[in-house]
Amino acid sequence: MKSAKPSVVQARDAILQSALHEIERVGILGLRVADVAKGANCSITQIYRYFGDRDGLLAQVLGDLYQDILNVMTESFRSRVLSKPVIAVDDVLAALPTIFSGPAMRSQHLRLQILAVSVTNAPLRQRLEQISRDQSKVWNEGLDEIEQKLVTGQKFDRRVFTMLLANLLPFYRTLLGEDGFTNEEFLTFLRDKLTT
Amino acid sequence: MKSAKPSVVQARDAILQSALHEIERVGILGLRVADVAKGANCSITQIYRYFGDRDGLLAQVLGDLYQDILNVMTESFRSRVLSKPVIAVDDVLAALPTIFSGPAMRSQHLRLQILAVSVTNAPLRQRLEQISRDQSKVWNEGLDEIEQKLVTGQKFDRRVFTMLLANLLPFYRTLLGEDGFTNEEFLTFLRDKLTT
Repeated sequence: MKSAKPSVVQARDAILQSALHEIERVGILGLRVADVAKGANCSITQIYRYFGDRDGLLAQVLGDLYQDILNVMTESFRSRVLSKPVIAVDDVLAALPTIFSGPAMRSQHLRLQILAVSVTNAPLRQRLEQISRDQSKVWNEGLDEIEQKLVTGQKFDRRVFTMLLANLLPFYRTLLGEDGFTNEEFLTFLRDKLTT
Repeated sequence: MKSAKPSVVQARDAILQSALHEIERVGILGLRVADVAKGANCSITQIYRYFGDRDGLLAQVLGDLYQDILNVMTESFRSRVLSKPVIAVDDVLAALPTIFSGPAMRSQHLRLQILAVSVTNAPLRQRLEQISRDQSKVWNEGLDEIEQKLVTGQKFDRRVFTMLLANLLPFYRTLLGEDGFTNEEFLTFLRDKLTT
């Protein structure tokens, strides 16, 4: 049996769903609270009641989105590498996403826009800081496990992950088009730097 | 003698100046063409006549800003390193901007916002691609010069510049706060990877 009036949880979810739909439609930077309200069949006042203001709404939606993107990346890497009983550096390299490819670019674009919004949105910034710290713990545990399971005699410099890959913006490479390095050249570089 | 009516060049400059002022005031993402027109003492129609549309105006202003940021970085590095007759790896490291420091963060924030806008602004994206290709040529010439002047017996792996530093987003590191690596740890990492 459905109640005639949506519950608070339902109304809140409808707003978040509508905001996500608007982001799909006009992008993060073009999102307008009035359009979100229209899509959720509620008033702007109601949105402000649940989320404080536009920044609060964006902090929730974009924070969730950012967390989702990182979760997908981390889970894919974990399942492909940490499931193995013995790990070689080449296994680690093979599990990296092809960061300069088309499919990976969509999540790059989203991350870039979310980060840019966080420059002027304090609650979103705080949320991203918390997500980053949590993520950093998960990755460090994964790197511990890789070191424990590493093929005898191989060297694995984890700083290549914590100082390079975790801070990489492949978008810069994309701007270079044909003038940029290839994914293969990049993997060779990573192999060299991981093992020396 | 001043003419009563501003020339096209003067009017165009006034619009660009006003846009820059608005970016200072409300940030890149909040910039409104109506406010730019007001600040330049002109009509919105006039802005559209010179720049096509809001995207065209942003492509010009943000492209110029992006170019300026890169020029300052490149010039500072060039004057500190390439002026030397003989170059050691430590000279190169000493000339790098302290990327995680407060002053460097302002230009990081600007770059981040400009890149995010370029995701949905085609003329800006084209402009950034051109700037990146030009910049890449300048850096490769600089790296050639470093290799030629390098202290005898030292190794210098230029991929650390082209594949790591040129694609680095220090903002990620900043999100980690106290949990992140220090600038000193980062320099040690770079020294290790440059020389092996």
